[in-house]
Amino acid sequence: VSSEIKENLKRRFTTNRIETLVDGIFAISMTLLVLNLQVPQIPSPVTNIAIIQYLFSLIPKFYVYGLSFILLAVFWRINHQEFHRIKKSDNTLIWINVVWLMFVALVPFSTSLVGEYGEFQSAELFFHFNMFFIGIIAFFNWHYAVNHNLSSIKWSKKSYNQSRNIYLGLPSLSALAMGLTFISPSWSSMAYLGIYLFKKLGKTEKIE
Amino acid sequence: VSSEIKENLKRRFTTNRIETLVDGIFAISMTLLVLNLQVPQIPSPVTNIAIIQYLFSLIPKFYVYGLSFILLAVFWRINHQEFHRIKKSDNTLIWINVVWLMFVALVPFSTSLVGEYGEFQSAELFFHFNMFFIGIIAFFNWHYAVNHNLSSIKWSKKSYNQSRNIYLGLPSLSALAMGLTFISPSWSSMAYLGIYLFKKLGKTEKIE
Amino acid sequence: VSSEIKENLKRRFTTNRIETLVDGIFAISMTLLVLNLQVPQIPSPVTNIAIIQYLFSLIPKFYVYGLSFILLAVFWRINHQEFHRIKKSDNTLIWINVVWLMFVALVPFSTSLVGEYGEFQSAELFFHFNMFFIGIIAFFNWHYAVNHNLSSIKWSKKSYNQSRNIYLGLPSLSALAMGLTFISPSWSSMAYLGIYLFKKLGKTEKIE
Amino acid sequence: VSSEIKENLKRRFTTNRIETLVDGIFAISMTLLVLNLQVPQIPSPVTNIAIIQYLFSLIPKFYVYGLSFILLAVFWRINHQEFHRIKKSDNTLIWINVVWLMFVALVPFSTSLVGEYGEFQSAELFFHFNMFFIGIIAFFNWHYAVNHNLSSIKWSKKSYNQSRNIYLGLPSLSALAMGLTFISPSWSSMAYLGIYLFKKLGKTEKIE
Repeated sequence: VSSEIKENLKRRFTTNRIETLVDGIFAISMTLLVLNLQVPQIPSPVTNIAIIQYLFSLIPKFYVYGLSFILLAVFWRINHQEFHRIKKSDNTLIWINVVWLMFVALVPFSTSLVGEYGEFQSAELFFHFNMFFIGIIAFFNWHYAVNHNLSSIKWSKKSYNQSRNIYLGLPSLSALAMGLTFISPSWSSMAYLGIYLFKKLGKTEKIE
Repeated sequence: VSSEIKENLKRRFTTNRIETLVDGIFAISMTLLVLNLQVPQIPSPVTNIAIIQYLFSLIPKFYVYGLSFILLAVFWRINHQEFHRIKKSDNTLIWINVVWLMFVALVPFSTSLVGEYGEFQSAELFFHFNMFFIGIIAFFNWHYAVNHNLSSIKWSKKSYNQSRNIYLGLPSLSALAMGLTFISPSWSSMAYLGIYLFKKLGKTEKIE
Repeated sequence: VSSEIKENLKRRFTTNRIETLVDGIFAISMTLLVLNLQVPQIPSPVTNIAIIQYLFSLIPKFYVYGLSFILLAVFWRINHQEFHRIKKSDNTLIWINVVWLMFVALVPFSTSLVGEYGEFQSAELFFHFNMFFIGIIAFFNWHYAVNHNLSSIKWSKKSYNQSRNIYLGLPSLSALAMGLTFISPSWSSMAYLGIYLFKKLGKTEKIE
Repeated sequence: VSSEIKENLKRRFTTNRIETLVDGIFAISMTLLVLNLQVPQIPSPVTNIAIIQYLFSLIPKFYVYGLSFILLAVFWRINHQEFHRIKKSDNTLIWINVVWLMFVALVPFSTSLVGEYGEFQSAELFFHFNMFFIGIIAFFNWHYAVNHNLSSIKWSKKSYNQSRNIYLGLPSLSALAMGLTFISPSWSSMAYLGIYLFKKLGKTEKIE
């Protein structure tokens, strides 16, 4: 038993610090999304009606706030599950994480852009590309950890495939969303509703 | 004894990462409240009197700063007590937490809105709705954890009822505040003084 | 030995979460100080000379940035030393901490104010009052913990007095700074150089 | 075995809190870099072309965003490796860290400055000086810890020299970059590509 505790403690030390940076950057990025929502200087005379009208005009911005918040939470959750099983890290893994975090920290900007110009394809494409890179780098992160023996469990063929599908599913949704911008930029982010399907997949594989 | 330590360590691992995100988003949201307070460009000639007058004109903003800070601290404290007793988490619990955090991270915006337009009912209602959702989701969070066997202690009928009262008490105060906006928007947030009563309740049940 | 470890683990659980909030709010407040420094829109034609002149005009703001950063670090350090010895917390201690953090999170605003209007007594007084409250609440925090048996060590009369002197020293410096504003607002913050003396005191008492 | 665990736990307590502040300030500074990127108010009529043109005009700002993010990650990584081996801290070490963090938290400002005025030598020099101080203070931090017996391992002459080279390498690159500003301010930051060489050095010495 004692050696098991020791093992646990050791594992904590080795990946602990990366997780702290990851958690910090996610928490801050998610909270900075709110800066996208600005209280206006309503010209006098200020009335209840004017404030309500303004709040209604913010609906697209509330929508992207919620969308980005949920998407970042999904990525954080996936990272959470992954690091649960990673027993050590190496230089490459850390650098994959750093580049990944660079795109995570960019989300408040993409969200602002799409909150302001969501009806334009260029803005939506920028947002979807941002999410695509977060998704694909998360995949490479997992792929690298699994294939370089940094993971603490044996992967069955089945659970390997299921995890791969989840990891590739997210950037696929971003790619789908990019495609949808050619039809309707404003509705393109509906593609991310597909996450609901992946959640289901995630449940079959019992991850605590 | 050893198995108890192991149990402790295991518990830490399983809920540890959610707590980190929760703590991060609370800390950042609470600190971003200060961005509500802006240093003005006082037109020249700047005088001590002008600065003092400006600081006095900020009093409503200092008030909402303090109010939001305290309310977020109350919600954080409740979460603190709750997670003390939660031995494991599942997918649903995590998603309840994410939606909860989405409303927590929105508080700096609501606070700004009410700091700028606190004498208007619409602004105050938005603030109270924000707090109401934080309160009611915290209740569902607790309710779900208790009823899905994720909590580490046996709940007596009495302590269950006391906790439920605390959890339902906070959104009730928000509902009361919403009602008060029909009488006086500016004074409606006085409803939250009722927290003092719930604190008393909280003390009868000995929570470390 | 085992029971000692258990004790250690238990202690971590009980005060761990407050420390996380404290560390978060300190880290964010200290980093938000930088928002006080804004990159200007220099009117064209932009020249090296214009940028250099602008950077020199920022010197008072760099000064308050450094001062506030150091002061917050001092308060954080004191809290660090203190929580090292606190074995448990109670409701009152948590609420003293919350009010304390409210004043900590206010520092970026005070710093901005004094960075903009540092030659005016009113602005400096606001800053010194802010620091005074942080100092005096930290004292009450310590005083409460020691007198309510929440501390893990026995305090000798001598070490008790030394700690009390350190805790009362910081708000005394703020009071001195307030007095100095009547002579020269811009130089009043020199009073905080007195921290160097308290550091010396801190070294006689072997902590950590 | 038990005493080893105890030792591990003890070590965590003693340097744990500084690491938290370091991680916090790094995470926040890295995320605040994004505030350098602002969504513009494009004059109507807004078109896809106008948005794309604007995004292209942001390329220098994306570049400094990426550069600063990577550089901060490098410094954080070095600190990560270092604290892995530090068994205790003292007053001086903490104060070196605080001054170091003061320069770390300044990076969002330097980045903004260089993002706005990167073609001017004065702005680039400011940025390189900021990075130089971060690098040289990190060196002193390491130097102090090693020479005051705060490190948990014996340093061989060879590994001591290798570490020293890494620590001195980073400020050397900043010095080189300063020199390059006399030739071309805009390209001076290319000097930091030299990090790739130091990474190689870092790999020879097996640091987990």
